[in-house]
Amino acid sequence: MILDGKALAKEIHAEIAAELAPVPIEERPKLVAVLVGDDAASQIYVNSKMRACKKVGMPSEKLELPASLSQEALLEHIERLNADPSVYGILVQLPLPQHLNALVVAQAIAPDKDVDGVHPVNYGKLLMGEPSAFVPCTPLGIQVMLERNNVDIQGRHVVIAGRSNIVGKPLACLLVQKGKNANATVTVVHSRTKNLAAFSREADILVAAIGQPEFFTADMVGEGAVVIDVGQNRIDDPATPRGYRLVGDVAYDEVAEKASLITPVPGGVGPMTIAMLLSNTLTAFRRYA
Amino acid sequence: MILDGKALAKEIHAEIAAELAPVPIEERPKLVAVLVGDDAASQIYVNSKMRACKKVGMPSEKLELPASLSQEALLEHIERLNADPSVYGILVQLPLPQHLNALVVAQAIAPDKDVDGVHPVNYGKLLMGEPSAFVPCTPLGIQVMLERNNVDIQGRHVVIAGRSNIVGKPLACLLVQKGKNANATVTVVHSRTKNLAAFSREADILVAAIGQPEFFTADMVGEGAVVIDVGQNRIDDPATPRGYRLVGDVAYDEVAEKASLITPVPGGVGPMTIAMLLSNTLTAFRRYA
Repeated sequence: MILDGKALAKEIHAEIAAELAPVPIEERPKLVAVLVGDDAASQIYVNSKMRACKKVGMPSEKLELPASLSQEALLEHIERLNADPSVYGILVQLPLPQHLNALVVAQAIAPDKDVDGVHPVNYGKLLMGEPSAFVPCTPLGIQVMLERNNVDIQGRHVVIAGRSNIVGKPLACLLVQKGKNANATVTVVHSRTKNLAAFSREADILVAAIGQPEFFTADMVGEGAVVIDVGQNRIDDPATPRGYRLVGDVAYDEVAEKASLITPVPGGVGPMTIAMLLSNTLTAFRRYA
Repeated sequence: MILDGKALAKEIHAEIAAELAPVPIEERPKLVAVLVGDDAASQIYVNSKMRACKKVGMPSEKLELPASLSQEALLEHIERLNADPSVYGILVQLPLPQHLNALVVAQAIAPDKDVDGVHPVNYGKLLMGEPSAFVPCTPLGIQVMLERNNVDIQGRHVVIAGRSNIVGKPLACLLVQKGKNANATVTVVHSRTKNLAAFSREADILVAAIGQPEFFTADMVGEGAVVIDVGQNRIDDPATPRGYRLVGDVAYDEVAEKASLITPVPGGVGPMTIAMLLSNTLTAFRRYA
């Protein structure tokens, strides 16, 4: 009943570790995370990614740069990483400070090291159904989670709520393509959709990625639906040590009673996103070899 | 009741002609169509495009190359066109002979001269919602046709039948984006969709792009829907001079009685596609200037 992303991510980590084990440390693919400024949430995300690398025996580096960094200086760092043969994956943590242009930065990353899938060439290949695309980690993690849990999506109606560049739109591209673990009928709904609940209720598979805490209540979900909750919303909660707790875009308790399968928050999509970052870095390494 | 693509294309041609008129001939943007081999349909399409250029006073050139051409030689031609400052638009007519790799060829075209929108960078920018994308001409023509006929698509349900790289998928990206003449709720259905009619009947705007003659019958279309027919299917017809006639993917006569607006075939989407090719070439010229 629960799509346990944490357990599956662990499995995938173990597979990656096993593939890296025979490779001498100095030849293993390195992942570099570029962190500009001192956004607290970004620090937490990057640290989780670094920890995951460590767990699987993948070399990694956190490149911390000041918020005041010029765009030119950032592009020089990326150029250096592009040219470094020990670096197979480059990730620039978003959001960037306002004065930096995220599109220009994305285009500076060598497409074959763009393991976060942010370069327009990778988005374009994804849209075109080219298997050489690097797919953004959250959509890829959702596809893999469905596959590994034997959820057949072919011909089923996937309703994706949210149209962001890192979740909704690339996921729609991924699942609508011809091919294995795809071939879905896909609807994208969003803030301008009229009568959103009429769509979400019809979904065989509902993906909630709108960033609204507990937006999807039981009456908005069909009986037996598979529910994927991408939301990671912080809700003030003085009873917790951190002063907040994470909730998804789905009202978990009530929806869980109707859903056939559901991802928890935390422990659902989040860990899969990180596992896919490592997996994409391994893919970059395999392609090179 | 009829969305007259032919008349609208004429209007747009007149606008382009007016914008080009004050520009000295030798400074006007040139469009080059590259035609490899002697596919009869491709010849017809390219000739229509050349005729349209002539009508609006846009310099154009048909570069005809033998079917036996090596990929390397084709890439050299494209390189030369990329470097030619008089050329603002490059179009490689598809399909290419089997031994040529369409993706490699698309990636060879300078993205800022890629007026057919086939380079992965342009597909990627389209997916990302970047206004600097060159959008493939058929989807762009459909969006413009809806806009110029005051069909508001914001919040309306657009059902796109077909998931090709030149129509279905890029159109879905275009219409689901935030912004003017977009913000639609979009569903993509295709050959693997179960109970396709249940989806098509729910559409406020139905786009038929599956290449099946007269597939959409009246019972598959909702009362008052706007119907866009992208199909261009040849049906044997000995009574005509050519021995065939063109029909769309929609059973026109019966669907026209239910639809609020409908495109005819021919004279609907087809002329708009050509108008957008000229429009994109003018855009390339404007961006340069």
